[in-house]
Amino acid sequence: MLKEFTLKTDQEGLYNITARVGETVRESGVKDGIAVVWCPHTTGGITVNENADDSVRGDLLLGLDRAFPDRPEFRHAEGNSAAHLKSSCVGVNQTIIIEKGKLLLGTWQGIYFCEFDGPRQRKFFVKVMGGLKHES
Amino acid sequence: MLKEFTLKTDQEGLYNITARVGETVRESGVKDGIAVVWCPHTTGGITVNENADDSVRGDLLLGLDRAFPDRPEFRHAEGNSAAHLKSSCVGVNQTIIIEKGKLLLGTWQGIYFCEFDGPRQRKFFVKVMGGLKHES
Amino acid sequence: MLKEFTLKTDQEGLYNITARVGETVRESGVKDGIAVVWCPHTTGGITVNENADDSVRGDLLLGLDRAFPDRPEFRHAEGNSAAHLKSSCVGVNQTIIIEKGKLLLGTWQGIYFCEFDGPRQRKFFVKVMGGLKHES
Repeated sequence: MLKEFTLKTDQEGLYNITARVGETVRESGVKDGIAVVWCPHTTGGITVNENADDSVRGDLLLGLDRAFPDRPEFRHAEGNSAAHLKSSCVGVNQTIIIEKGKLLLGTWQGIYFCEFDGPRQRKFFVKVMGGLKHES
Repeated sequence: MLKEFTLKTDQEGLYNITARVGETVRESGVKDGIAVVWCPHTTGGITVNENADDSVRGDLLLGLDRAFPDRPEFRHAEGNSAAHLKSSCVGVNQTIIIEKGKLLLGTWQGIYFCEFDGPRQRKFFVKVMGGLKHES
Repeated sequence: MLKEFTLKTDQEGLYNITARVGETVRESGVKDGIAVVWCPHTTGGITVNENADDSVRGDLLLGLDRAFPDRPEFRHAEGNSAAHLKSSCVGVNQTIIIEKGKLLLGTWQGIYFCEFDGPRQRKFFVKVMGGLKHES
């Protein structure tokens, strides 16, 4: 099963998409398998991190900005090479285990769409693969 | 097949879990497929890197620490935002190919659980998917 | 289906391997599933990023070099710890969704083999899993 989702982003941000990924797993009926979450953009990404304290998201964006700042030596004409770097650092996909029909996330884990070069209209995909019966 | 493992960590460290992932593949009987290794913690991760010279592990921790240091501007009250950053950088999962019943790792590759905010009692999961016969 | 590819690299570089991954998917006949791309080296990686403006690749290498420079404190005798760091940052594998027999990449996305410590003779693997009929 494959589903496509859209979201409208601000300049930068981490958007919690855990519920949408979880719903896709439920709809698919897959009990035992994997969910692949994919960002089809080169200045965005998908990451898994803290779902409780919202300030972590701001700290992640700040820390990435310091590690991968814009640089005068960059040659890409669009001027958003730092966003491309952050994308390759956090990655554009996550593969999450499905167990007993649910995402096997830790207590504090949420799935985030990362915007590094917004505001934009973005999309992401969720692919669910596996068995419809739990293998026990 | 899904297996859960536990480990006790120090303050920081890379822990070689290759043998445990390999055993899970053998136990599963899967000849041809994938193994998904998952860290359910937001201040840890899973990475694949050098299995021979132990000094690489220390260099990885040092280099990550310099790229993602603690910063006075961080707002997360727990004070471990740098560990969250390292987690999103190396990632919390790896998907490894299984060929002829074995992990398809390079000669120098090992699989590591990364602790960025210990000491703690941690766990990780290994999910094996695929066919029981080699497809040839 | 599993295929092994080789490539000859320069000192550093991002090599576009999208066509070879796409051909493997076509050859496999899989209509609906995933392709796992794996780099078996500890000083290389696999990333997904911009396929249009070549200058992005240079900017990515430059930005990674600044975030993960060589450091006098590094202890690894081979002297290539920075390359190991970049490998763990971008990762050695990508899992790409296959839909209707094709890689589900965004318009501007290409798949790259990353060389951080060449020139070398390198290889990478592509594993295709899934169904031969589209599930609709």
